[in-house]
Amino acid sequence: MDGKFISFEGPDGAGKTSVMRQITADLQKQLGLDGVLYTREPGGNHIAEQIRDVLFDARNIDMDPRTEALLFAAARRQHLVADIMPALKSGKVILCDRYVDSSIAYQGAGRGLGEDNIWRINQFAIDGLMPELTIYLDIDSELGLKRIAQNRADQVNRLDEEALSFHRKVRSAYQKLARQNPDRIVTIDASQPLTQVISATRLAIHQRFEQLF
Amino acid sequence: MDGKFISFEGPDGAGKTSVMRQITADLQKQLGLDGVLYTREPGGNHIAEQIRDVLFDARNIDMDPRTEALLFAAARRQHLVADIMPALKSGKVILCDRYVDSSIAYQGAGRGLGEDNIWRINQFAIDGLMPELTIYLDIDSELGLKRIAQNRADQVNRLDEEALSFHRKVRSAYQKLARQNPDRIVTIDASQPLTQVISATRLAIHQRFEQLF
Repeated sequence: MDGKFISFEGPDGAGKTSVMRQITADLQKQLGLDGVLYTREPGGNHIAEQIRDVLFDARNIDMDPRTEALLFAAARRQHLVADIMPALKSGKVILCDRYVDSSIAYQGAGRGLGEDNIWRINQFAIDGLMPELTIYLDIDSELGLKRIAQNRADQVNRLDEEALSFHRKVRSAYQKLARQNPDRIVTIDASQPLTQVISATRLAIHQRFEQLF
Repeated sequence: MDGKFISFEGPDGAGKTSVMRQITADLQKQLGLDGVLYTREPGGNHIAEQIRDVLFDARNIDMDPRTEALLFAAARRQHLVADIMPALKSGKVILCDRYVDSSIAYQGAGRGLGEDNIWRINQFAIDGLMPELTIYLDIDSELGLKRIAQNRADQVNRLDEEALSFHRKVRSAYQKLARQNPDRIVTIDASQPLTQVISATRLAIHQRFEQLF
């Protein structure tokens, strides 16, 4: 595996998409279009897309939280095998929008299924393949929710509709993960202006991978 | 939970369906139509049916074995919550065609994912809810495969097409589970004539639940 696997984490409203787009463009200038894979679960593979359809089908409001967590883990596994592992083998830099930490924060803490339980089923799904670097965009829960409401009211999804208390649990779980994994997770203050968040992200990537940036 | 939860296990070709139909009919005579639930995963609920569609879509031959195992666990969870638990609460006798033991035998042993690994993700899925009684129809692998070929060549599915060696691993895992869980699993010799298999099943159910049969 010659590639580099970097995940991006944080709540909606932290600016994750904007940051990832800019970082992808920057790295593509340095490495060429084929040198970078910008991806998110479920990725471009047909099986994981089918799983996503089950997860986000509006009729499925009676889905049990454990069913949901197992489906996320299944989509993750297929994304890993079909998209991330081939890219790693061909030496690409992979920028992945959300990974295991999201499940631990959202399902484990947010939905109350237990962070250890979620870690256990995800260990089975990823079989040891964790990112070398995780960029965590940290933002006050209220500010994050306000940004969502202002910027993309039309795209509000099921998770966005959860209460502020849900988002506070999610944030607190992310912060705990960052404390427990100081070698992997770099926390960036996402309440700063976007240009500063992007600069801090570039710096974090360069500090981990000297040849980048 | 006033109901009784009984699962039926064994390879295709062991006569599981014929046995379950007869036992269901017998119990319905005793308890009334509403007193018995004959079910199999994914059950009648729409979410688990959607998961089944992903699992058995012929285009999904590139599905990773771990993805498959997580999807089976997800369908099991939803079946449990939507079908089995309500039936248990209303005091029914539930006859369930395959449960956790199938995953341990087929995915854990047959596909080589590890019986402990499969048990772990299924523990998350079932959250402690195991059957009180499991009827395991044991049959020589070669005889079982011959019966499948003779009786329902038109229904052969992906698992049936696996080699004899696969079925031997599955049988061996079932036999190990029976040794490890002597209080739950009753092994019945399924090479006997069907009427004798059914009699032995009736007896096993009566020995566990004196008021039945």
